[in-house]
Amino acid sequence: MFKITSLPNRFLHPVTQKPEPGAGRENFMRFLHRDFDVPSGKMIVSALLTSVGINFGLCILFFTLYSVLRKQPGNYDVFIPRLLADGMSHQRTGFNLERLLPTPGWVRRAWKPSEEELLASSGLDAVVFMRIVIFWFASFESILWCWDYWVNCSGNQLENVDFANLTNDSLDVFSISNVNNGSKRNMDIYLQRELLIFIRQNLSHINLPFWFIVVPVSAGISVSDTVESFFTEFHPSTYLSHMVIRRTNKLQNLINDMKKQYERLIRLRTESNQPKFEHDGCCGLFRHKVNLVDQYEKKLEDLEENLRLGAIRGFIGRGIRAAFVSFKSRYGAAIALHMQQSNNPTQWVTEQAPEPRDVYWPFFSSTFMGRWISKLVVIFAYFDLTVLFLIPVVFVQGLANLAQLEVWFPALESILSLSFVSEIVTGYLPSLILLIFIRLVPPVMRFLSTFQGYICTSEIEKSACEKVLWFTIWNVFFGNVLSGSVLNQISVLLEPKNIPATLAVTVPAQASFFIAYVVTSGWTSISTELFRLIPFIWSLMRKPCLKSPDDEFEVPGLPYHKDIPRLLFFGLLGITYFFLAPLILPFLLIYFCLAYIIYRNQLINVYEPKYETAGQFWPTVHNSMIFSLLLMHAIALGIFTLKKVSLASTLLVPLPILTLLFNAYCRKRFLPIFVAYSTEALLNKDREDHNDPTMAEFFNQMATAYQDPALLPIQFSTNSDSHSAPLLASAEIRDSERISDQSQ
Amino acid sequence: MFKITSLPNRFLHPVTQKPEPGAGRENFMRFLHRDFDVPSGKMIVSALLTSVGINFGLCILFFTLYSVLRKQPGNYDVFIPRLLADGMSHQRTGFNLERLLPTPGWVRRAWKPSEEELLASSGLDAVVFMRIVIFWFASFESILWCWDYWVNCSGNQLENVDFANLTNDSLDVFSISNVNNGSKRNMDIYLQRELLIFIRQNLSHINLPFWFIVVPVSAGISVSDTVESFFTEFHPSTYLSHMVIRRTNKLQNLINDMKKQYERLIRLRTESNQPKFEHDGCCGLFRHKVNLVDQYEKKLEDLEENLRLGAIRGFIGRGIRAAFVSFKSRYGAAIALHMQQSNNPTQWVTEQAPEPRDVYWPFFSSTFMGRWISKLVVIFAYFDLTVLFLIPVVFVQGLANLAQLEVWFPALESILSLSFVSEIVTGYLPSLILLIFIRLVPPVMRFLSTFQGYICTSEIEKSACEKVLWFTIWNVFFGNVLSGSVLNQISVLLEPKNIPATLAVTVPAQASFFIAYVVTSGWTSISTELFRLIPFIWSLMRKPCLKSPDDEFEVPGLPYHKDIPRLLFFGLLGITYFFLAPLILPFLLIYFCLAYIIYRNQLINVYEPKYETAGQFWPTVHNSMIFSLLLMHAIALGIFTLKKVSLASTLLVPLPILTLLFNAYCRKRFLPIFVAYSTEALLNKDREDHNDPTMAEFFNQMATAYQDPALLPIQFSTNSDSHSAPLLASAEIRDSERISDQSQ
Repeated sequence: MFKITSLPNRFLHPVTQKPEPGAGRENFMRFLHRDFDVPSGKMIVSALLTSVGINFGLCILFFTLYSVLRKQPGNYDVFIPRLLADGMSHQRTGFNLERLLPTPGWVRRAWKPSEEELLASSGLDAVVFMRIVIFWFASFESILWCWDYWVNCSGNQLENVDFANLTNDSLDVFSISNVNNGSKRNMDIYLQRELLIFIRQNLSHINLPFWFIVVPVSAGISVSDTVESFFTEFHPSTYLSHMVIRRTNKLQNLINDMKKQYERLIRLRTESNQPKFEHDGCCGLFRHKVNLVDQYEKKLEDLEENLRLGAIRGFIGRGIRAAFVSFKSRYGAAIALHMQQSNNPTQWVTEQAPEPRDVYWPFFSSTFMGRWISKLVVIFAYFDLTVLFLIPVVFVQGLANLAQLEVWFPALESILSLSFVSEIVTGYLPSLILLIFIRLVPPVMRFLSTFQGYICTSEIEKSACEKVLWFTIWNVFFGNVLSGSVLNQISVLLEPKNIPATLAVTVPAQASFFIAYVVTSGWTSISTELFRLIPFIWSLMRKPCLKSPDDEFEVPGLPYHKDIPRLLFFGLLGITYFFLAPLILPFLLIYFCLAYIIYRNQLINVYEPKYETAGQFWPTVHNSMIFSLLLMHAIALGIFTLKKVSLASTLLVPLPILTLLFNAYCRKRFLPIFVAYSTEALLNKDREDHNDPTMAEFFNQMATAYQDPALLPIQFSTNSDSHSAPLLASAEIRDSERISDQSQ
Repeated sequence: MFKITSLPNRFLHPVTQKPEPGAGRENFMRFLHRDFDVPSGKMIVSALLTSVGINFGLCILFFTLYSVLRKQPGNYDVFIPRLLADGMSHQRTGFNLERLLPTPGWVRRAWKPSEEELLASSGLDAVVFMRIVIFWFASFESILWCWDYWVNCSGNQLENVDFANLTNDSLDVFSISNVNNGSKRNMDIYLQRELLIFIRQNLSHINLPFWFIVVPVSAGISVSDTVESFFTEFHPSTYLSHMVIRRTNKLQNLINDMKKQYERLIRLRTESNQPKFEHDGCCGLFRHKVNLVDQYEKKLEDLEENLRLGAIRGFIGRGIRAAFVSFKSRYGAAIALHMQQSNNPTQWVTEQAPEPRDVYWPFFSSTFMGRWISKLVVIFAYFDLTVLFLIPVVFVQGLANLAQLEVWFPALESILSLSFVSEIVTGYLPSLILLIFIRLVPPVMRFLSTFQGYICTSEIEKSACEKVLWFTIWNVFFGNVLSGSVLNQISVLLEPKNIPATLAVTVPAQASFFIAYVVTSGWTSISTELFRLIPFIWSLMRKPCLKSPDDEFEVPGLPYHKDIPRLLFFGLLGITYFFLAPLILPFLLIYFCLAYIIYRNQLINVYEPKYETAGQFWPTVHNSMIFSLLLMHAIALGIFTLKKVSLASTLLVPLPILTLLFNAYCRKRFLPIFVAYSTEALLNKDREDHNDPTMAEFFNQMATAYQDPALLPIQFSTNSDSHSAPLLASAEIRDSERISDQSQ
């Protein structure tokens, strides 16, 4: 580790030497964080302390509330739905004092399970998720350690500072932009090593898939026959069976209608058994009770009749040109997946089938061109949304100012005139609006991804995860850093030569904002994650309507597309700011520490694995890490060039090249593992299975495993005549298949 | 097709309205074409006519010489080596007058064969090559036709021009930069349609491969055993045999020495049988004839002894960790190729094996990391070479000026003082130097590619082809157009926003140069191709040394890496200039017309297919076409923006997007066909073979098909004792394999 001993202006902020970066631009993002932003780009310690205090208080409040409320049986469906569903936590009606006292026992319970136990209970995706947290925590901890070491080594620079004046002084004393190049290089290498270890560890967990989908596009007599003849001809030894996919949107709607009717009917019946006439405030339906039961039964029968007629008339939708094809061995399936099937590569498009629970049934489009075009449209929409996102936000923020609020809510006028309240409103309202808009992003991105032609929920969430990540980086990081209009932001990217110089000027200026961002957005989001604020409020609102406590509650899955981008974004903030404003590191460490405990707790108590992608989220994580490193290199390069430390900037030049080489190596060395399983692994697994006596039964199950839930036999009506002919039984479907296939 | 009726300044050159593009820059490339370049960027018709005249004369001269000289039996090895090798054209010693008269019979013979015949005789690569010529010819012909139609439609603009003054006027009257947008769009669509038709046609010709290489990297006892055990375990039903590859550089050198010695000996013996004592001017060796024969025989025996000892001592090189593995079916081989073999994707790297004749034996490196690093080094070297190429050229050009020549060759002073000669020297010498340097590029690029770790000559040439193409585009097109220093050129690329504007100013200014370039470089290169100038001169120099006319002559292969980039570059020139200077089109049409006849002639008479890549050169062609289209769009966009024809420039914006979409579609629809063969095709071919009785014999041959030529049994010495033990027989090699493997 070498030192550059006489760096100029060690304690000067890099920006204060330059004209104010936002000056002369439309820096309309600035007022979002006006409570921390002082004109010279410095941060007042008191402001940060206030923010830390408020958010620390909020965290404590949420933690206390959580530790009390989770013990109340009425809230089990909010706080421990998973345990409830597993039947592990039975309703305890007995009352004791302990239930009302906040206890930290959940922390211990969350800490306890080993990684293997987590893997067994929540799957590899959850382990990957936790590993992201651990990786960033370990990275930043070691960076902090290196930093501490370096500060100690470089001697008594800090002693020059008047600590008495610190409170009102700028925080820039900690923001030593003139970072020692050697130590940074060390960190870079450390990160890359960590990354490598991470990937290696991650790889050992990979599971093996079972199923594959084949999407044949052929103009023939019947989809089913085409599939059958193709696979019996070209995969005679491994082909097992297939199931043609059909459009079931209409059917699904009918079934949903029926389900609702049925539930109402059941509720009505259970009501009528009870002698007590209870007036339900929510649903005002129960006046002519007996008539209603008859009415519902009649309605249900009509619907079932419709459904049966529809099924016979091919109402269940034409079989779309796609099928799940199952094979007798994993290796056979892998061959069908990886080999191009027909001479025209767009004709038999093979894709790995998801697990049955993971299939996204409302397939959007199955033809090659259809999927390609819908993908292009979605990418275009995503691009527009990302670039133009800030326009409606700023518009709404412009509408919701103090004066406007007084016009809208005249009753609040007296409260709003208080300077304390008005300060909070003007300070927090724009942030709140931005936060609400940002909250809307993950669902919107997920919605967009559903149109992209993916066949399973995990692919949709993976795609949404990437979308949300780049959206966040563009709108929160670059939106704040470049703090100009959209066109201005894009024009910076169009001049790649100037990117480092621009970043060197603008990034350090936002250090204070992003430190505060970690505290406000990060800490708060993680404590509301623990407290499950929205589900809790929703449950409070819904409870009066429900009669039985276990009436309907669904165990949720961890929303990876929402939480992974957030973790990665905080990682990016840490990497880009650790040498500009090392003060960000402790806050990030606290964030990742909380995230570790809280997500473990939630994985044990709340979230159920909804699918198993075998670590498919990892490449996104890797890409974002490489991007963060490159961004850091660009910023450091810009700063050193700006400060004319030519030796340091020359020494920096190989770093981005090394990072890119490392990335290229990883893409060759590790990416193939995420794409395909090896012959070795597949054949070994197949040979293990070969001796397994349960395989015959397994193959029998396979024939129906990919049955569309809408096509499963259901029976709601109580009429004895319809009992004898179970509705939509598989046999019936198969007949209609043939009819609808031939009518194509 | 719509028309913009009142375009401003229809007959003004786009550049003359602007300040001189090169002014104030280091436009050191300008003097390369100073004979055509007048200050305002206009072209004097007389200069062009002179150039056309000279080059037309050269072409006629070469054609006449060719048609006479090819009929002389002594030149058969230069002009019809292929026919000679096939034994189709026997030496005719009789003399008749016809032999001395130029006849156009070869044109008819070149025209005659159908595409199927060409495919049968010269392979798919030759057909692809000819199709490039046809494609560009057809494109430019149709563009010319569209242009003609449009000029007729737009009425009597040309009537305003004073045709009497045309000779001394500028050629810009034909360079109608304000191209009609509608017609250009038509052309674009036409090109894309043509491309599509082309690809479709091309695909129907694809052959099927037979062999695959597997490069295993395993630290084990013996490479051979590792390969054997792996494939018998994981591909038991399809694995046939394998052959470990060994380093044979030293052996090859020894064998080459032996060959030379043997040839000399043979020559000496045939000499001694003849009673006539002939004094050979080239090799002055024949003084003590009998002694020499003995001496050579002794030397040969020593070498053979060395070789035998070396083989036993494992001198033939450690088996490198690579092997050719053969399979019982194509499908089995394809599965081994496309499936990842081991959990670590860098451990068993599979690659398709080339044909045996195509294998590049001096493997550079076989390990994954070794190949990756050598590839990176080559890319780095290529990048440097491309960017810095002009520096030595300009340096040499600076040295070789008129005054310097007079110093070096004082004898020529009187000739050089003639104004005509000095004009030619100053006009052509820099061009000549540039031409010599450019001639050196394909061999240098081929040399670079050999270090990239490719296993076959075809891959090396394919890679060299791409390198030469982008080198030419960068150094000839952008080097001339941007006509600045290297850093200046790069800085333009670093500001993507300004690219269209820069190109709009600089590209039209070089129209005259590139029209002349087509005539000088294109026409001359194609006529020297016919005449085979360098092989002819070489043959003339070598002939006195050789005794028998069929002593040694090798049938060459078409140097695709040299000729494809040239065709593609002329295509790029046509696409970028057809709307700026349509006068380029007739010259290009003549070029492609000549190329069609001449390359067909050469394929029939001269070049022998050295390998069969099944059209692997096509993706390079496709990429260059897409690049040409995008470049044209950028230039057109820049020009319309510059001229403030906002409607036209707005209408142009979708074109590059459509081109990119078309490219993306082609990559999905057609590229997979170049990467892999389909299950359908492979299995059908396998089933055909299954009934073929010759397959057993074929499998037997397979065991030795990939024997390194250096390891084949050879026998030069005439000693009877060494006769009984044929040197380096396969059995011996196999023994030593085991020894050297185990010594690792």
